[in-house]
Amino acid sequence: MKIREILEDIDQYLDTEVKVEGWIRNSRFGKNVGFIELNDGSTFKNLQIVVSTDALNYDELSHQFLSTSLKVIGKLVATGNNKTPYEIQASDIKVLGESSDKFPIQKQRQTLEFMRTIPHLRPRTNTYRAVFKVRSSLAYALHKFFQERGFLYVNPPIVTGSDAEGAGEMFNITTMNPDELPMNEEGKVDYSKDFFGKKSYLTVSGQLEAEDYALAFGDVYTFGPTFRAEESNTPRHAAEFWMLEPEIAFADYNVAMDVAEDMIKYVIDYLLENNADEMEFFNRFIDEGLFDRLNQVRNKEFARITYTEAIERLQASGEKFEFPVEWGMDLQTEHERYLSETIVNGPVFVTDYPKDIKAFYMKRNDDGKTVAAFDMLVPGVGELIGGSQREERLDELLKSFEENGLAEEDYQNYLDLRRFGTVVHSGFGLGFERAVMYVTGMKNIRDVIPYPRYVNAFSQKN
Amino acid sequence: MKIREILEDIDQYLDTEVKVEGWIRNSRFGKNVGFIELNDGSTFKNLQIVVSTDALNYDELSHQFLSTSLKVIGKLVATGNNKTPYEIQASDIKVLGESSDKFPIQKQRQTLEFMRTIPHLRPRTNTYRAVFKVRSSLAYALHKFFQERGFLYVNPPIVTGSDAEGAGEMFNITTMNPDELPMNEEGKVDYSKDFFGKKSYLTVSGQLEAEDYALAFGDVYTFGPTFRAEESNTPRHAAEFWMLEPEIAFADYNVAMDVAEDMIKYVIDYLLENNADEMEFFNRFIDEGLFDRLNQVRNKEFARITYTEAIERLQASGEKFEFPVEWGMDLQTEHERYLSETIVNGPVFVTDYPKDIKAFYMKRNDDGKTVAAFDMLVPGVGELIGGSQREERLDELLKSFEENGLAEEDYQNYLDLRRFGTVVHSGFGLGFERAVMYVTGMKNIRDVIPYPRYVNAFSQKN
Repeated sequence: MKIREILEDIDQYLDTEVKVEGWIRNSRFGKNVGFIELNDGSTFKNLQIVVSTDALNYDELSHQFLSTSLKVIGKLVATGNNKTPYEIQASDIKVLGESSDKFPIQKQRQTLEFMRTIPHLRPRTNTYRAVFKVRSSLAYALHKFFQERGFLYVNPPIVTGSDAEGAGEMFNITTMNPDELPMNEEGKVDYSKDFFGKKSYLTVSGQLEAEDYALAFGDVYTFGPTFRAEESNTPRHAAEFWMLEPEIAFADYNVAMDVAEDMIKYVIDYLLENNADEMEFFNRFIDEGLFDRLNQVRNKEFARITYTEAIERLQASGEKFEFPVEWGMDLQTEHERYLSETIVNGPVFVTDYPKDIKAFYMKRNDDGKTVAAFDMLVPGVGELIGGSQREERLDELLKSFEENGLAEEDYQNYLDLRRFGTVVHSGFGLGFERAVMYVTGMKNIRDVIPYPRYVNAFSQKN
Repeated sequence: MKIREILEDIDQYLDTEVKVEGWIRNSRFGKNVGFIELNDGSTFKNLQIVVSTDALNYDELSHQFLSTSLKVIGKLVATGNNKTPYEIQASDIKVLGESSDKFPIQKQRQTLEFMRTIPHLRPRTNTYRAVFKVRSSLAYALHKFFQERGFLYVNPPIVTGSDAEGAGEMFNITTMNPDELPMNEEGKVDYSKDFFGKKSYLTVSGQLEAEDYALAFGDVYTFGPTFRAEESNTPRHAAEFWMLEPEIAFADYNVAMDVAEDMIKYVIDYLLENNADEMEFFNRFIDEGLFDRLNQVRNKEFARITYTEAIERLQASGEKFEFPVEWGMDLQTEHERYLSETIVNGPVFVTDYPKDIKAFYMKRNDDGKTVAAFDMLVPGVGELIGGSQREERLDELLKSFEENGLAEEDYQNYLDLRRFGTVVHSGFGLGFERAVMYVTGMKNIRDVIPYPRYVNAFSQKN
């Protein structure tokens, strides 16, 4: 029986004999009594097992190492102690699988850097159990939010034949033997001999395909892995990460901002309600300002200001920034945080960025200088979400192609959407791991991905 | 306003003026009246728009091609007709985005083969709208099933440094320029210079990592893309497909079979309840035996027989098979279907397969010949799910390594699970697209993946 099932139906099980199985997360054995903190993964908190010296294998149990697995039979009793209100008075404990002194996670606190060297064992610690439980819940809360609103979940391809999405370095996928590459007449590698018949890549975004589906289903979202071969070795970058990309037809960017705001509020509510123990852990041990920040986001209506106004207010602030503020620049994290933390004091959408610093597919505003883009900035982090209205007018999109040096023939499918019943539509992207960091207060992306992938990941040890 | 919102709250909207936006899926214009079948993607069925010849732009509307997008204002009225109980009597219709005679999906029925050449437009047809809506719902139903039972959703890596998972051909991932490959002293390609510092691959399964997490969280599942570089050009194979892989600690394979059976029944219920229109469509137009088959699965307790018994019963059946039946062979689809359709007449788990035809990690039975594996066979398809109890005993696993010619040093993490608190655990894999095919009756995997990837996918046109 799962510990969660017992605790969720305590009236039924109190003062009865129960059977649980789990791992030793902590233990202390004295002359008169032994205590084992048992966890089976079904709850964040451990359940205390009291072992009397009468136990035939008291000595065996007292010598077990952390992570030993046990089967425990005993009576569930109330302790009268608020912190650990229930415990099991064991009548029978069987060792299922021993651990040893080589188990690398010992009682003293170990660093997250060390934990990254043992990705297969670190989920057995409090911090990572909290992180990966919240990661799981957050993923589900996002699905729930969109499904309840009738959005279609679409899976864009991971393998793409196009390197034209214009979002940085891509990984190549191949089955060719590099020691025996087929060559064409020009002495170059002949990719027509490769598995897919053409040079192929890992996707950097599912947005363009999501647009195909939005123009059939109205409201859609993607949620899956995406890849960037960026060599950035920072706490905020990974080569493999999950992205959520909603796309909404018959909707301008104001509607997309409404959805983004509702979504963030919904998932924060979901986590505080369904993962109270884990969230409490983060607020106490990882980031003491966490609850304040999340509550501020839940309770405030998000402000909306244009990029132009943001620039003016940053300039008027008198604050000294590392990167001087001027119209046309891309906002840096220092500016984004100052905007949300000091100028607005809460979450804020900054809208209508200069077109020269934004992507080709964004709707061109009538001023000829800006596009209908938006970023959601939140205190403590800066940018959490980026989105835009999409350019749905064929002629304007073709102008953008020309200005951005893109070839029409690479985008025939995308142009077809503008040829056959085009409609106003908008969407945004949420970096899932960034969101996990935001709701947990964890500071390094490698601590919120089960097996993080980044430059030289397989040749270094954390 | 979405058509779904109107139809879900018909009492509020009946006989009032409503505004909808959508695409023309069909239309006929006569001398006295015009009819437009409008769809905004929020419902499977279209909503009929009645256009009176009084409309100022009656002529413009009568000349629109399929897929033109419209904004319609009008009164929602009851028709008294069961098939299309409501319609909008339009007072104002605006063309948002025209289509043209080049729109490739015309009124006459087109083949699925042709549709595969236009993956960006095919979701605008009935068949694909039904398929991809059910795909979305099925994905969500699977999440819901596992989350409601406390399972943790874990994301194993897509990029892996190990080619040792032993499940067929793998794709290589690289950022090296094939025309300027770095060479090592032996004249071979030097992968230490590649992005990840080592030769890297696309994952074929997340099971081994799921085991890491099951031994911390108890109950976990993966759900994400996996890859096989198999050149099989068949209606059932794709190079990129999604897999669901639950892994359950403190559970023998009987528990895993219970979970698999409950899961299949749950998702069928979910689809019949939440996607009635789409499922009705499949049962009428795609596969007339569909409802019978699904209802049989919902209502029956799944049988369980051993492989050895299955072989005996196949041999005793007198049936002539293409592949002769003998103990030790892998069951072919013809055998699997005969077992479930004729011998058992319903879904059946076949258990305890010969160890020589199964994977190294499966729990070795005491008979020395078989392993605690299981396949779920269902009428109409054959194998839908494959799973097993995992070998949790270090010494037995090492024996299996030796017999299978695997190197211990490649599996240190996996062996650690057996060194530090090992427990009995089991799991299974569900090929998501196979499941979509099963619940829809679609016969080709390329019709249930938005952008299917297979050998030579980018050099041929369907």
